[in-house]
Amino acid sequence: MSSSDRDLYFMKEALKEAKKALEKDEVPVGAVLVYQDKVIARGHNEVEILQDATAHAEMICITAGTTALENWRLSETTLYCTLEPCPMCAGAILASRISRLVWGAPDLRLGANGSFFDLFALNHPMHSLEITPRVLEAESALLLKTFFEVTRKKKKSNP
Amino acid sequence: MSSSDRDLYFMKEALKEAKKALEKDEVPVGAVLVYQDKVIARGHNEVEILQDATAHAEMICITAGTTALENWRLSETTLYCTLEPCPMCAGAILASRISRLVWGAPDLRLGANGSFFDLFALNHPMHSLEITPRVLEAESALLLKTFFEVTRKKKKSNP
Repeated sequence: MSSSDRDLYFMKEALKEAKKALEKDEVPVGAVLVYQDKVIARGHNEVEILQDATAHAEMICITAGTTALENWRLSETTLYCTLEPCPMCAGAILASRISRLVWGAPDLRLGANGSFFDLFALNHPMHSLEITPRVLEAESALLLKTFFEVTRKKKKSNP
Repeated sequence: MSSSDRDLYFMKEALKEAKKALEKDEVPVGAVLVYQDKVIARGHNEVEILQDATAHAEMICITAGTTALENWRLSETTLYCTLEPCPMCAGAILASRISRLVWGAPDLRLGANGSFFDLFALNHPMHSLEITPRVLEAESALLLKTFFEVTRKKKKSNP
């Protein structure tokens, strides 16, 4: 598999996670962590179900990844997430020493890789990583659009 | 109790948490979450024990706080933490809508309230909060200094 085919393959896995969130009425964001060409951890947004604002897809996936590798340093891993990470998740990606980040759709309000601000462009004292943005952007954005349209309709019928 | 006496009281509670981390050979950082003048959640750094880079004192405390209040929105709470929050924790504080933050010692490398950069000075689209820095700064800094001196000594004797 070429490196871009690999990115498409794993982003589709992250999209499967985002769809799980959608089925639970959560904002549809998904993530997978890849090590040695295998998915070692998965996560999808569960903020409402867990009633925990830190339960973003990336955070759940990172914690599951540290359990899988029995190491808080996720060196030589790639995190695929369907949405540009927020400040919390971007901070967690740096803290856990993930070596590559691939994301799908930009988060125009809260994205911490250029949309709101760019945490990765600051001179982090301990870590830097490779980033590939906008992989399967349309698919990720469509899921989010679907979710917010349904939410809006529900609010209109139950104002 | 005056408001500054209250801050000293609750920061001492956060310092108790930091000491628990020190006893476990973790970087000594602690946090407590206060709602209606009561500590409703506690946390201390457990990155090494849990082998999870996201297991910072603030993150553990925030998740425990959402469990206590059964709500991901921690409105009308104050988070006391012994160290200036890192980017991940600062992002989590904003995401969970904490209304006030009180911190102890600055984190000159990674602090996200002015030392590394200031996440709270950016125009976050959903939330802003009141911040009181450097409460019991010397006590928090001394704990960290003690930890890093002991670590350095251990490294010297076991290079």
